[in-house]
Amino acid sequence: MSKLDKISASEDVKKLSFNEKTELCSEISDFIIDTVSKNGGHLASNLGVVELTVALHTVFDIPRDKFVWDVGHQSYVNKLLTGRREGFKTLRKLGGMSGFPKTSESEADVFNTGHSSTSISAALGIARARDLSGESFFVGAIFGDGSLTGGMMYEAMNDAGISKTPLILILNDNHMSISKNVGSVSKYLRALRLNPRYSHTKSVVERFLDRVPYIGGSAKRGIRRFKRRLRSVILPNNIFENMGFEYFGPVDGHDLKKLIEVLTLAKNAKKPVFVHVSTKKGKGYQPAENYPERFHGLGPFDKETGEVLQSKRDYSSVFGDKLFDIALENEDVVGITCAMPLGTGMSRFSKYFRDRFFDVGIAEQHGVTMAAGLAAGGRIPVIPVYSSFLQRAYDQILHDVCLQNLHVVFGVDRAGIVGADGETHQGIYDIAYLSSMPNMAILSPSTFSELEEMLSYAVNEHNGPIAIRYPRGSAQSSGRMPAFEFGRAHRLFTGNAVTVYATGRMVAAAQEVRRILGEDTCVVAVPTVRPLDRKTILETASPISCVIEDGICSEGLGSAIAEVFARENVDAKLLLFGFPDSPVPAGTIGELDRKYGVDAQSIAEAVRRLKG
Amino acid sequence: MSKLDKISASEDVKKLSFNEKTELCSEISDFIIDTVSKNGGHLASNLGVVELTVALHTVFDIPRDKFVWDVGHQSYVNKLLTGRREGFKTLRKLGGMSGFPKTSESEADVFNTGHSSTSISAALGIARARDLSGESFFVGAIFGDGSLTGGMMYEAMNDAGISKTPLILILNDNHMSISKNVGSVSKYLRALRLNPRYSHTKSVVERFLDRVPYIGGSAKRGIRRFKRRLRSVILPNNIFENMGFEYFGPVDGHDLKKLIEVLTLAKNAKKPVFVHVSTKKGKGYQPAENYPERFHGLGPFDKETGEVLQSKRDYSSVFGDKLFDIALENEDVVGITCAMPLGTGMSRFSKYFRDRFFDVGIAEQHGVTMAAGLAAGGRIPVIPVYSSFLQRAYDQILHDVCLQNLHVVFGVDRAGIVGADGETHQGIYDIAYLSSMPNMAILSPSTFSELEEMLSYAVNEHNGPIAIRYPRGSAQSSGRMPAFEFGRAHRLFTGNAVTVYATGRMVAAAQEVRRILGEDTCVVAVPTVRPLDRKTILETASPISCVIEDGICSEGLGSAIAEVFARENVDAKLLLFGFPDSPVPAGTIGELDRKYGVDAQSIAEAVRRLKG
Repeated sequence: MSKLDKISASEDVKKLSFNEKTELCSEISDFIIDTVSKNGGHLASNLGVVELTVALHTVFDIPRDKFVWDVGHQSYVNKLLTGRREGFKTLRKLGGMSGFPKTSESEADVFNTGHSSTSISAALGIARARDLSGESFFVGAIFGDGSLTGGMMYEAMNDAGISKTPLILILNDNHMSISKNVGSVSKYLRALRLNPRYSHTKSVVERFLDRVPYIGGSAKRGIRRFKRRLRSVILPNNIFENMGFEYFGPVDGHDLKKLIEVLTLAKNAKKPVFVHVSTKKGKGYQPAENYPERFHGLGPFDKETGEVLQSKRDYSSVFGDKLFDIALENEDVVGITCAMPLGTGMSRFSKYFRDRFFDVGIAEQHGVTMAAGLAAGGRIPVIPVYSSFLQRAYDQILHDVCLQNLHVVFGVDRAGIVGADGETHQGIYDIAYLSSMPNMAILSPSTFSELEEMLSYAVNEHNGPIAIRYPRGSAQSSGRMPAFEFGRAHRLFTGNAVTVYATGRMVAAAQEVRRILGEDTCVVAVPTVRPLDRKTILETASPISCVIEDGICSEGLGSAIAEVFARENVDAKLLLFGFPDSPVPAGTIGELDRKYGVDAQSIAEAVRRLKG
Repeated sequence: MSKLDKISASEDVKKLSFNEKTELCSEISDFIIDTVSKNGGHLASNLGVVELTVALHTVFDIPRDKFVWDVGHQSYVNKLLTGRREGFKTLRKLGGMSGFPKTSESEADVFNTGHSSTSISAALGIARARDLSGESFFVGAIFGDGSLTGGMMYEAMNDAGISKTPLILILNDNHMSISKNVGSVSKYLRALRLNPRYSHTKSVVERFLDRVPYIGGSAKRGIRRFKRRLRSVILPNNIFENMGFEYFGPVDGHDLKKLIEVLTLAKNAKKPVFVHVSTKKGKGYQPAENYPERFHGLGPFDKETGEVLQSKRDYSSVFGDKLFDIALENEDVVGITCAMPLGTGMSRFSKYFRDRFFDVGIAEQHGVTMAAGLAAGGRIPVIPVYSSFLQRAYDQILHDVCLQNLHVVFGVDRAGIVGADGETHQGIYDIAYLSSMPNMAILSPSTFSELEEMLSYAVNEHNGPIAIRYPRGSAQSSGRMPAFEFGRAHRLFTGNAVTVYATGRMVAAAQEVRRILGEDTCVVAVPTVRPLDRKTILETASPISCVIEDGICSEGLGSAIAEVFARENVDAKLLLFGFPDSPVPAGTIGELDRKYGVDAQSIAEAVRRLKG
């Protein structure tokens, strides 16, 4: 019987001998490699925290003690140790176990995460609630060095560092974001790691200052003054100490014994502490150690060879390739990524146009305003960001780009349903949040070539903020779209009984609805979501009119068309198909379309029911 | 003739002798006190940067060199020195000169600001654009220590510190945000200020390390190792150096000579530098030095006595007072502010409930997620934030509060038109950005007592995220509203020809429209904007139906009602009155209502035109 079978909470981990814990670590690694190779999921980040998580359960008492996992895709080990081994059979599937912490799954998940850099804020809130109710459990946050590129972490440390409330911050420093980490803090962490005797040295220096009787021939008063000055520039002398934390580390994150030691020190400190743990992303699985970015989050792969199924051409790569071509011609174009050069298709651009490419880290706020600065300086910045992550820069898009009407091109990648990552990653809110912004244009292609046309237009012809939203994957409408024309909708098929308006990947569904309902169905593709082609919309309305979109219905294309209908008192029954404004969980795109009635079959049935 | 009359650019400042520059500083202070005492505006922050701005113009060449003013309300001096003295007659008025930097006003304003903590990002973008085009002017950012509580600044420093591009960051450290600054960074800055010999000491220590021949009786190798270690814990040893900047300072920000010296050093450094300037907010005007928060941004006041017109009871104070009463009864209630204890009416709460009150700094992102943590820990957090500043926390509201359906109460203060602060501060987007979020309820009172009822409900009865949006000032609808009932709209007056739906302060306008149009006008107050009372909306529709709201029409109450009408094919012509989704400039609330046709007279005329 395996070690893992006997574990369902911290108390079970504590019962194991040290050697048994080491065995447990190997078992966990094997289990994760096996599961992810079959089902897909986040591999490298979880392999990196096996020992750290086992050490946490050894020193602390989970779920009584509460730890928030930043981003949360590295919480598989914690799930395994808290009675959810069976759940891995349904990992990231519709109705199955989430790939992220979920309070609804287990008491051991204390706060849902998904986006980066929220953990210290959440943990501080939980710690303060604890203090107010006079309880005494431990509270902490575990976050990667990538998360430290997000500004929220400093806001939280600024508050926590002066709060005096016991709080345990654990930096899982794997020198990576999803890609290689960037920025001066990352460089600084490297300096700390390369100076592992930091804590030791500090105490040596302090002892020296206490003991040294004289230096050279200086007078006694001078020495005292010198010592005082020296002390003032030495102590405190690291960013985290300066921000009010007691600093422990760096410690080897794969040395279980040292981890247990340092976490015990942190536990006993009774104040805000910062534990610096150095880990290796993908630890223990050679392909993932070698290519941690590729093995960050992925589909099934061959466990023996590490070979990943070659992915099809998708919208991200079409975007990146086209941008590359455009940038060859137009040297004003600059590219910006927020820690996602590979995911957004920008790898080639980043290598070829080194001077014109900026990876700002997981820092969407800064990335967007920096883009605004580049635009103010006469460049044409293009910044592809996943739809759900671009939410982080709402204010910067509105305040810095849109109010100034600056020419910044946003690639809204992973727009619409994204699948297995679930509710925190669904890109279904972008039309809603971008549509209220002054001067913002919104485009949504239904084929690869339409995306290419749109990007050319956005960079070379448009002036002002413009967003192109495109889905995860490769779903294209059947047939070629009419040439892209800014602000124009296209009647693809005529018909008078029913009109179906659709945008993006849903143009394919609209075409399918027509195949089901028959020829009297008008199909209108709306590639420019904003500004809306009111004229074509009004000309093509039928007594039953439908809108299909890959996003929430309210405040989307549907509600924009509803506004046109109501203002003009159009005599039509309008049906809106899209996703609800309640959380949309994990599942495949097809499953979720069906679950929420946004597939062609469900839509056709709804129309038939109405016709009676 | 005064000095100021001869100045319209840096070259004019440079021509003055040092003594003349000192005189110029006094003149500027007098001018600003005089202007703001008559017209209102931002006083204390501008008085604090008189010498700094004159020094900038002495050392640099503005507008050729480009400086971004963070937040921007401290840019009056720069406006005065760049040919905009006459503009102060129309400061912050409709069609007049903005109280913030505006690129449309002058070349000397290189980037529009208004919200906090954007300046380094924008300046870095401008610097990179400069590098790409091979130009050689200087680029910098000037920001307060309050702005350093915003996380975006660290995102930008993380990127800039490793960029190698010459960039001049100037910290205007006045130990204040609008109120007293908070957090560990503020404490750290204080330590730096109290250690003015920091730079000097560092060089002393370095010289020591170079020179010292032996210490006590240690062997030579040991000494070498010890010196290496000592150096490693000393250099670099301040946060800004750790983040990649050369640090200069702290320097007295009212000592013009020292300022010119340090800025000259910064100019010659040719890399990213951080200049720490210590200033006094309100410098030179005793009432403002004594009460910098009161003199931050204000209306006209008596220049001699410093007496400010006692402001009327407003929605902010009603909110704060009611919350205080509720908290006396319900000890689960905790209050959070993002650096605005006074502005949001929370002063009394903060003093009485010290343990239950958290000022997190200008850190809306952290404030919201920390609130989510408190809610996850069983408390009931209430967080009032100005509508336009809450934009900064869009992702945190959606991702951390709404997806988890946590009970956090948002006070959306200064919702709707705010007046003189202009486009960056108009709170007209909140219904749009909150309406797409899962589980979020939105309320909008039209009287003080309705706000009180709503707050009681939100804290004591509701479960889940809820936002109450209330206007700046004291505009109330005439007469008492029916008792608040969550999710219910109220028909205040019956009528069949025209229906006017309104929410918030616009309920008063709707009542006025009825007085103008006559008795066949139905008036419906919609205190619960979300979820919408579809039943009452449908029951009260008339052939001409109007919606009035203090926000943008699209994605507001208007578009929500349009969606109901279109889905139900209601036979009505719907007119939407509200603000456009183009930038809305400064002006009084009444002026802007009229300009955009959202006043009762304009609405009544529009209805009459339609009736023919």
